[in-house]
Parts: sequence; C-alpha cells; structure tokens
Amino acid sequence: MTVEDMAREMKLSAPRMGATSETSRNQALQAIRNALEAHKDDIFAENHKDLDEADKTGVADAVKKRLKFDEGKLGSVLEGLTMLMELEDPIGKVTLNRELDEGLRLVRQSCPIGVIGVIFEARPDALVQIASLCIKSGNCAILKGGKETLNTNRILFNVIKEAVTKAGLPEGCLAQAESHAEIDELLKLDRYVDLLIPRGSNKFVRYIMDNTSIPVMGHSDGICHIYVDEETDEAIDIIVDAKIQYAAACNAVETLLINKNVSDEFLKNLAKRLKSEGVKINATPELISKLGAEAEEVTQISDNDFDTEYLSFALGIKFVSDIDEAIDHINQHGSHHTDSILTKNQENIEKFMQLVDSAGVYANCSTRFSDGFRYGFGAEVGISTGKIHARGPVGLDGLMTYKYKLYGSGQTVDEYATGKKSFTHKDI
Amino acid sequence: MTVEDMAREMKLSAPRMGATSETSRNQALQAIRNALEAHKDDIFAENHKDLDEADKTGVADAVKKRLKFDEGKLGSVLEGLTMLMELEDPIGKVTLNRELDEGLRLVRQSCPIGVIGVIFEARPDALVQIASLCIKSGNCAILKGGKETLNTNRILFNVIKEAVTKAGLPEGCLAQAESHAEIDELLKLDRYVDLLIPRGSNKFVRYIMDNTSIPVMGHSDGICHIYVDEETDEAIDIIVDAKIQYAAACNAVETLLINKNVSDEFLKNLAKRLKSEGVKINATPELISKLGAEAEEVTQISDNDFDTEYLSFALGIKFVSDIDEAIDHINQHGSHHTDSILTKNQENIEKFMQLVDSAGVYANCSTRFSDGFRYGFGAEVGISTGKIHARGPVGLDGLMTYKYKLYGSGQTVDEYATGKKSFTHKDI
Repeated sequence: MTVEDMAREMKLSAPRMGATSETSRNQALQAIRNALEAHKDDIFAENHKDLDEADKTGVADAVKKRLKFDEGKLGSVLEGLTMLMELEDPIGKVTLNRELDEGLRLVRQSCPIGVIGVIFEARPDALVQIASLCIKSGNCAILKGGKETLNTNRILFNVIKEAVTKAGLPEGCLAQAESHAEIDELLKLDRYVDLLIPRGSNKFVRYIMDNTSIPVMGHSDGICHIYVDEETDEAIDIIVDAKIQYAAACNAVETLLINKNVSDEFLKNLAKRLKSEGVKINATPELISKLGAEAEEVTQISDNDFDTEYLSFALGIKFVSDIDEAIDHINQHGSHHTDSILTKNQENIEKFMQLVDSAGVYANCSTRFSDGFRYGFGAEVGISTGKIHARGPVGLDGLMTYKYKLYGSGQTVDEYATGKKSFTHKDI
Repeated sequence: MTVEDMAREMKLSAPRMGATSETSRNQALQAIRNALEAHKDDIFAENHKDLDEADKTGVADAVKKRLKFDEGKLGSVLEGLTMLMELEDPIGKVTLNRELDEGLRLVRQSCPIGVIGVIFEARPDALVQIASLCIKSGNCAILKGGKETLNTNRILFNVIKEAVTKAGLPEGCLAQAESHAEIDELLKLDRYVDLLIPRGSNKFVRYIMDNTSIPVMGHSDGICHIYVDEETDEAIDIIVDAKIQYAAACNAVETLLINKNVSDEFLKNLAKRLKSEGVKINATPELISKLGAEAEEVTQISDNDFDTEYLSFALGIKFVSDIDEAIDHINQHGSHHTDSILTKNQENIEKFMQLVDSAGVYANCSTRFSDGFRYGFGAEVGISTGKIHARGPVGLDGLMTYKYKLYGSGQTVDEYATGKKSFTHKDI
C-alpha cells in the first residue's frame, strides 16, 4: 500500500478513533505494555541486528547509544506507558458552554487533531512513546522511524499494532512507513495529514518545514542563551550545567552574553571552570583581553560568529553593554527556544522575560529545564519553537484541537439579521 | 523600503509592542476612532477614486458593493472599535502556575504572536478591522489589501498609523504593502513573519498555503452540508436560510444530503420552495425521480459532482442510505468547515457531532451561524478550517500564543538528574 493509500484510509478512520472511550484507549496502552514484555526477547534480537549493522557501517558511538533497546530502555518505556494511562483523558473537555439564544446552545469541546505524521530519529523508544501518546489522545499516526533501526522499529510496530487492534481500537489507527522516499510522499498529503511532527537534525527538520504545506510542529534550531546581567554566586554552576549536562540537547546553552561590568575575577573563574570541565571557549577579543592567563586555549571569534548551534562542549561568549543589547542579540540570533538571565535585579528579570521572544524565558536557572517531564507534563511529543498551536515543551495538549457543537431548535440566521430575534450570549 | 526590511524591523519591534499596556493599546484604538471621524471626507473622496476606477474597468456589482466605504460602513467600523476597546485584555493571562521545586516556579502566560501578515480582499472596512484586532492583541501587522481599493487603503492606513504612533505605540507596529509582487516576497519571510492570515478567493488562499513555510490560518474552501436525517417542521426553512441568506459566504450550504426514507411530499415541498426562492437545484437521478412535477428545471448531476462550492443560488442534493453514509460523505467531500444535521433523533445528533470532522457540527439550525459575532466573540479575524492553533471562527484568542517563565534560584538540571533534588510539581 502506498503512503497515500494509508493516509486516505486513516483519514476516514480518524473520527472513529476520536470516538473511542477513555477506557478502551487505556486498555490499549495496557495491551501494548503486556505485549512488549511478552515479546521482549524477540525485540532485543531484532535490535541486535540493527546494532550489528551499525557496527559494520561504522555508526558513531553516540548514535549507537540511541539505537540500543535493552532491559533499561524497555523499563523506561513501560514506566512511561503506566504514567500515560494515569493521565487525565484529554478528549471531550468543555472550554465554552454558551447560550446564544433560547434553544440555541454552543459548546466548544476538545477533540483529537486526527491524522498525525511523525518522522523521528533512530530511537526505538521514541517509536513506542509517540505511538502511545497518539493513542492516549485519540489520534491516528503514521510513523516513520530512522533507517538505522529498521528491524527494531518493524517488530515494535507490529507488536504495538497487534496489541491495540486486539484491544479493540480501529484497525487504521496506526501505520508505518519504512522507506526514506515515503517521507517525500507524506509531505504532499495535506488532504489527509493534519499535522507533521519531525524530530531529528536541524537540517532534516528544516527540510520538512520547507517542503510541505502541512502544519509542522517542532524546532529546527536550539540556539539558547544565558545572559549574565550581574555576577551571582551560582552563575558559574548554572552556565556549566546548561552547557555540559547534556550538550547534544536542543536546550543546552550555545551563547553566553556577559554584561561588560562584571569583574575580571568572575571572568577568569568562569574560564578556568569551563576549561576544567572540558568546554572549548570561543570568545570575542574584548573578552579575551580580560582573561589574563586564562586566555590560553580560548579561540578568538568575531561578533558575527554567534549563530552557531554547537551541540557539543563548545560555547560562544561575548560582552554586551546592557540588558537591552542582550535582549536584541537574543531576539536576532536566537532560535526562540529557551534563554536565561542571571541576576538579582528583579526589574531586569521582568524586563528580560517580557522582551525576550522565546518559548522559555528563565531567571537564575539552567536552560536545560526546558522539557516536558521537568515541567510536569508527564509525557512529551517534542519542543516547539513556533508560536502557532503549541510553544515550548509539548505534552498531550499539543495533540488536541476542538470543535464547536451548536444545538439548535429550528433557528435561521435571517431571524437575527432582520431583528426578529436577538442573541443573548449567556455563558452557562 | 522592501517588505523584507519592513519585516526585519517589525520583528525587532514586536516584543516592545507586546509589552505595551492595555491602557495604551485601548487609547490607540480610541485615537483611530477619532482620526477616522476627523478625516472621513478625505477618506470618502479617496474611495470615490477607487469606485470611479472600478466603473471604468467594469468590476462586478457585488465587488463594487464591497469596495464602497461610506457613512454606513464607517459607522460599523467605529462601532467595532468601541466594542474592541471594551473586550478584556488578552495579554498576560496566566494559564499555568506551578512550583517545580522549592524556589523554582513555572508560569505560563499569554502573549501576542508577534508579526502577522494579513493579505485581504478589496474591502476597506477589513483593513480597519484587522489593524485594530492586531493592536488590541499587541501584535505587529503587515497589511496587504486588494488592489481595487488602493487609494482607500492608502489613506486609511496613513490615518491609522499616524493615530497609533501619536498615541504612543511603537513606530514599527503597522506596515503596509501595496504591490502584488510584495505578496511573494512576504511568503518567503519565515524568519520574520510568525503567521499569515489570507482572506479572499479559494484559489488565492490555496496559493498562499502552497507557497510558504510560514504558518497559515484561514480556509480555502467552504463546502458546508446539511444532512436531513428526518423530516422536521423547520427543515425547509433552515435549508433555505443556509443557502440564500448570504449565498456568497463560506458558511452557506452547498450540498444537501437526504435520508432516502423521507417522504416524497417533503421532497416535493422542498423543491417547490427552493425554486420559488430562486435556488437552482442540482440533483441525482434517484432523487429527481421522486419529485414528480417539481422535477422541472432541476439539473441532473452524478454522485461525483459533489465537490463544488457554488457560492451562489445553487445547491447539490443527493440521497444517502443512512447517517453513516452521510458522515462519510461529509468527511470525504466537505471542507471541515460547518455541517448540520436535521433530526429529532438525539442519538443521531450526538453521533453526527462526534464523527463529522468539522470545525462546526450543528443540529437543527442553519450553517450560517458559524461566525465570530454570532458566537459572541466580539470580533473576528476569519474562520479557520485547519485544526492547528485555532479552529472555526477566530477571535482575539487566535492572535495569541504563550510563553513559559521559569523563576529559579540557582537550580541546575544535574541536581535533579543525579537525585540530589526532586521535583514537587505542585500547582499553585
């Protein structure tokens, strides 16, 4: 079956999937949980095939770590499923209940988006997580995972699909695409696919965004900033955490902006600590001149070199004259992801939070907090740097839309247009 | 200045616009109101130039009616401004306030989207309405109006811009694009423009959607349905209203699906009434065969002719075997705008509302109710048939996003990752 055929069928199934009860969706999650446990040896065996292939093709160690699906990862996945079952049903929430006139009642109620295309990196646990988020929220999903985990994805998908179908969910609620060419097919299916969620490299996400008219939720870049407005006791710890706690994450800091009035001592201590943690410092000449002996091993860069997402143990550092210059720099060079100010000055904290145009605006803590689990959302689809629909870490809510139900008793618009009747607009 | 230069500057102004007080934004709306009244003679004079030009080029009467900006239209526009001033400030609403841990508080707060590009049809009142919605919501806007109202748009824009700037809003909060070529420029500016709202013909909106990676809010089609599940007393009145009350509207009915069990008498009465109201009936042979003498002047069409948005006094009619066939037809051939069921059967009403995948799902009333004013939103940006961000009639809320503010006191993620601290996730 082509991706188009799959998507067309799925579009027709989607309203039925959205009409399933909370109980049946939670039972399906339980069924997935049971099936994954029952089939774990087969799943690990398929994963070994992918790992062997990765060894042969010389895949990087960091990537291999992501490819691996073992007892530990299975454990987290099972725990995630249990958590998801316990979350409140996102379907059917009434957000407006209004009498437009006697016998004419308007209700706005949450419902699933419908058909979601998810294209994700080579992480088998991501397949389970995303499929289960879609099921919990009553959405249908077309899943396309990374080619490096083809065997693991295939068995995981088959196990999950069989489990949910047996549990009584519509046959067409999940589909899998396997070949890379199918991505381009998928991008054209705006008639059938309501939302695309791409996860992966900047370049890949950018490609998706540039080549489809389907709405896309996600982020291509994660150029996060910390602005040191004033030296604080904990500033250096926060900067180190934001850079090295997980340098490959999109919420790791890439650029440090420092108010030029901070002490030389602070700068030297900062440089010393960063170097001792293995961070490669890229700084402007003005800043390097303040570092004394600590200038060693620091790479000189210019004011134009601050559009880089390093995703590694490297950090760009420059001076700014004041908070306004910091804000403008972030708004022009940032990716509207997460930016933090370090200061005791409350007024500056509020100014920064007001004027920095990012999904996360932080004070006195690490940019790495930008994450659905840390925010207490239970589960995360991804992080959105767009401003439309969902912004920042996206939980189940991001997979929902709403519809307006209007219960009438014979009303025509003409009666209101000609003044025979008038609206009451009373919220009930 | 090129559109790109305008947009780049606007992107930098946007956070400042978002930081303006409710008072100053309302004062700006009052200033627009005063200025429009003060300059009305000049505005009418410029509008006459456009009307004269329209006479020369032989523009259709319906279009000329839209181009006209007279005392009546000015009156509605001024009234709209007053209503808008009275609406609650959409900025700064707190939708989440959560302690992640002691001294680490997360706040989600509404804020403007930022830079909005609005491309609209040749209706001068739309320019005022859209500019003032953007101001109320703290957004910056690039406005591109129809070429047929070039002179009226120019003076309206200048009057508005001068008024809001004098009232103290940032200089860069409004910009105007005048040439058609600038639309294509605008579509490329995804770095600076956060949202596009196109209004106009299906073909035009489709063009915008297909040629930009900027999120688009709106609708290209409005193929709305009425499904007659059972004959009701008011069914014929509702159908007539939905078709003729304003046939050029996107929420007018285009297709009537009738349960094949209705009486021949109902069908004959319906056909008679529609014809007497001047509606051109297009029906399938099966249906025509039931009409007896009323079959006269009815055009025969096939089952494949139900993807047409007539936008005129024409209506497609066909039989369906049951509610399921009706629902599938609507989901496949509709535009997910607004669809209504006519029946006394409560179970079928709920089934229809649950399974029809449209922004508006109605029972026993006209599809023409789908409108921001009728829903009591005070003002309307447009109607969205997309499911992302906003669906159905879009009021001020549709111009808002949110940001996450995280107030910390030195926290690093590593403390939580290594178990030294743990999250409390307490809503406050």
